[in-house]
Amino acid sequence: GCACGSPELSSVHDTGPHSFTGMKYPLEDVLEAQQFDRQLMSGIFQVAEQMEEVERNSAGGNLLRGYLMATLFYEPSTRTRLSFESAMKRLGGEVLTTENAREFSSAAKGETLEDTIRTVEGYSDIIVLRHFESGAARRAAAAARIPVINAGDGPGQHPTQALLDVYTIQREIGRLDNIKVGLVGDLANGRTVRSLAYLLAKYDGVKIYFVAPDVVKMKDDIKDYLTSRGVDWEESSDLMEVASKCDVVYQTRIQRERFGDKIDLYNKARGKYIVDKNVLSVLQKHAVILHPLPRLDEITLDVDVDPRAAYFRQAQNGLFIRMALLKLLLCGW
Amino acid sequence: GCACGSPELSSVHDTGPHSFTGMKYPLEDVLEAQQFDRQLMSGIFQVAEQMEEVERNSAGGNLLRGYLMATLFYEPSTRTRLSFESAMKRLGGEVLTTENAREFSSAAKGETLEDTIRTVEGYSDIIVLRHFESGAARRAAAAARIPVINAGDGPGQHPTQALLDVYTIQREIGRLDNIKVGLVGDLANGRTVRSLAYLLAKYDGVKIYFVAPDVVKMKDDIKDYLTSRGVDWEESSDLMEVASKCDVVYQTRIQRERFGDKIDLYNKARGKYIVDKNVLSVLQKHAVILHPLPRLDEITLDVDVDPRAAYFRQAQNGLFIRMALLKLLLCGW
Amino acid sequence: GCACGSPELSSVHDTGPHSFTGMKYPLEDVLEAQQFDRQLMSGIFQVAEQMEEVERNSAGGNLLRGYLMATLFYEPSTRTRLSFESAMKRLGGEVLTTENAREFSSAAKGETLEDTIRTVEGYSDIIVLRHFESGAARRAAAAARIPVINAGDGPGQHPTQALLDVYTIQREIGRLDNIKVGLVGDLANGRTVRSLAYLLAKYDGVKIYFVAPDVVKMKDDIKDYLTSRGVDWEESSDLMEVASKCDVVYQTRIQRERFGDKIDLYNKARGKYIVDKNVLSVLQKHAVILHPLPRLDEITLDVDVDPRAAYFRQAQNGLFIRMALLKLLLCGW
Repeated sequence: GCACGSPELSSVHDTGPHSFTGMKYPLEDVLEAQQFDRQLMSGIFQVAEQMEEVERNSAGGNLLRGYLMATLFYEPSTRTRLSFESAMKRLGGEVLTTENAREFSSAAKGETLEDTIRTVEGYSDIIVLRHFESGAARRAAAAARIPVINAGDGPGQHPTQALLDVYTIQREIGRLDNIKVGLVGDLANGRTVRSLAYLLAKYDGVKIYFVAPDVVKMKDDIKDYLTSRGVDWEESSDLMEVASKCDVVYQTRIQRERFGDKIDLYNKARGKYIVDKNVLSVLQKHAVILHPLPRLDEITLDVDVDPRAAYFRQAQNGLFIRMALLKLLLCGW
Repeated sequence: GCACGSPELSSVHDTGPHSFTGMKYPLEDVLEAQQFDRQLMSGIFQVAEQMEEVERNSAGGNLLRGYLMATLFYEPSTRTRLSFESAMKRLGGEVLTTENAREFSSAAKGETLEDTIRTVEGYSDIIVLRHFESGAARRAAAAARIPVINAGDGPGQHPTQALLDVYTIQREIGRLDNIKVGLVGDLANGRTVRSLAYLLAKYDGVKIYFVAPDVVKMKDDIKDYLTSRGVDWEESSDLMEVASKCDVVYQTRIQRERFGDKIDLYNKARGKYIVDKNVLSVLQKHAVILHPLPRLDEITLDVDVDPRAAYFRQAQNGLFIRMALLKLLLCGW
Repeated sequence: GCACGSPELSSVHDTGPHSFTGMKYPLEDVLEAQQFDRQLMSGIFQVAEQMEEVERNSAGGNLLRGYLMATLFYEPSTRTRLSFESAMKRLGGEVLTTENAREFSSAAKGETLEDTIRTVEGYSDIIVLRHFESGAARRAAAAARIPVINAGDGPGQHPTQALLDVYTIQREIGRLDNIKVGLVGDLANGRTVRSLAYLLAKYDGVKIYFVAPDVVKMKDDIKDYLTSRGVDWEESSDLMEVASKCDVVYQTRIQRERFGDKIDLYNKARGKYIVDKNVLSVLQKHAVILHPLPRLDEITLDVDVDPRAAYFRQAQNGLFIRMALLKLLLCGW
């Protein structure tokens, strides 16, 4: 009874020359950025572009009719939750939601994550899991017979954010090879910039600039990985010069919660690299500013009106990427 | 792809002689009671009456199919939230819900309301906002490209409550001109009675009685406004006499939270004007008792069975008003 | 406008020789285990079996299209809430949800349960109530004009759990007469084992074994009731011997919260009767292990892979029972 097979949906399904039927990577779970290579990302991005065209009451809008997604969030993340739930509903699916599964009576009583998953899979067709422990998504996927999507597991992975960042670069710049990307802000703790650097290493001719206050510099593991993949990178303390060269300036928030009571250090780091009108004045015409949001004042409000400010379009792309993943996990290519 | 344009819905849409197509007030947001005049309220009330006829599986029940409403509640108000969500679902629409957006990870991290709105509008078609700060709805509407409905912003406005109160009077009494209304209870702090007095001033031949304990009397701004509009009003300390004259007795709860540790004052105010069997005994046969709910003991339980006790019908009217507003904001007249 | 009457649904409705039209027990509310006798349970279980066949996009999957269920949970119970919400959505219905109605602004302000029910019934077609006070469901049903399902009211009843337990025994063992059931663990406080013993007494030739640590033995009221109904029962301290004789071993969690600061007593009770590989080794081939979940370590993890471990199938049966009850309460037999 899956709507995916319905002939009326052929306009969405039969992608003709772009058809992925028989693609060698069936998607079973979405657990970590490492599972995606160029070909798989290219396939997902083509489906995501189709998702931008899904209209209310169109056949595409009924693609997941009758399917139930359970959003199991062990820590609150309203933005991510709403994005997944919107994606499911835009495709005609339904949602069982938990805003704070940590207070789950059964989890509070000592039930294992595996037992919770085995129960919830009886009520739903796919599980979106947000958890406070690294590796939780992998454990959930091992226990579940239905697909699991990792919506962030503590300091671990947040693969849909990584995918939407790469997708946004392709949509905004038009290519992923031969680009220059400046990663700015908290590069030590930021899960998103680490995953982005990792995924960009899969493309050719990429140059990465790291622009970070000393206390939150990019760690050696990513630098070594980039070097091992032949990716050109350098550190810089001159945001203006980097901005003038780059296709993408990816700004991030300095995370206060990482500084404990060292408020002085935090304030110093926070004010160091701000994207403002001055940065815009040297930025190339085709280049864009990205940010995973939420932002505080690391991008000034007067930047928002510039067409190169792409961070709200980036958030919107999260919807299309998640629609694409839900479609692929539940209906296949 | 809007279902509103579908020919099968013409029975709901083509309201014939009552058609509002071309109405001079397109509804873009619902922000405050002041935006409504007689003609606009009359139009909304006619749509609300149509909404009472929307049946399960009827064409009207599919009017908002494919639309997504985000309920962004920065303070809990389950009654209002359920009323809006029921309205959306009765019309075939879908809901993204947040029971407590204040704990929103991004708001907690310092994100502005404007940035949150710009993100959420990428996931939904209309935003219902409840906020603890006066003016928040106006700020949200300024940031959003999609319609915003104010579901209460702190001490500020709660316009859908005001509309449902006026609608209930019309439904129960049959007219809005030439009525006598007694406003009883906490008139100093009650947002609802202030808005109601304001809106009633738009009708002709209205007489308003204020019956309040001294500590929570109606403030001068509303009295002056009524006078400036030529509305007849007087203060009274005799609930029985007022009840015997009025078409509508609008009782309200004395809000304990306004009294701090002055428990004596609260208890004295609270017991002063109770609607009970004695009040019913002098109330005219066609008159009604209203209350915005929740009630404590300011209306005694034995009043509930009297057909003139209209407060649960009033709550139900909130559903029809919200269905009408969602329809108008998303599909037009 | 109820989809139930639609001719396309006849395959689900016209149950032919099993048709319950005219059944002498119309179902109006689900409040307590005592309301169910053999015939009514048999009817419900036949509908539950039909529910196992409801497919996505099938006529059955649209049975409750247009209906709205309000889940009013005054204490959190995510497992039960998700099970009900999944049941409603699997039948095409919609849900208004409250994860924690106790923080309901109106309840916090002192509104009675009855007033809340009278308001919520204006927004929905059926209410699922979880409450912390025994008798709350009965009070809600008395106030409501729409059906109320008790999803657990404090130390009182949890009738849908009781029904799913009996249903699981019938599905797993194939009969309810002439069975041997071992009830193990916390028999003093466990609502589920008490209701199960009560319902099993309605069948013939049932033998019940109680296996409990001394501090949490089955209470006399149930024992006396079983005796009065002619049900054979005995207490045992030998889990292995009981397991070798029974068709069903129903294990339960020792509830730490009942022991206060008597940790020693808790730990002693908790370790006493564990279902493990040794128990499986004496269990008959056709017998099953049940558990209401969540479990801690009273069933060891290596038991899960044995086909006689039926507790996750039992949780899944909760979905079918709740689908059946929603169907019966909203559409009749």
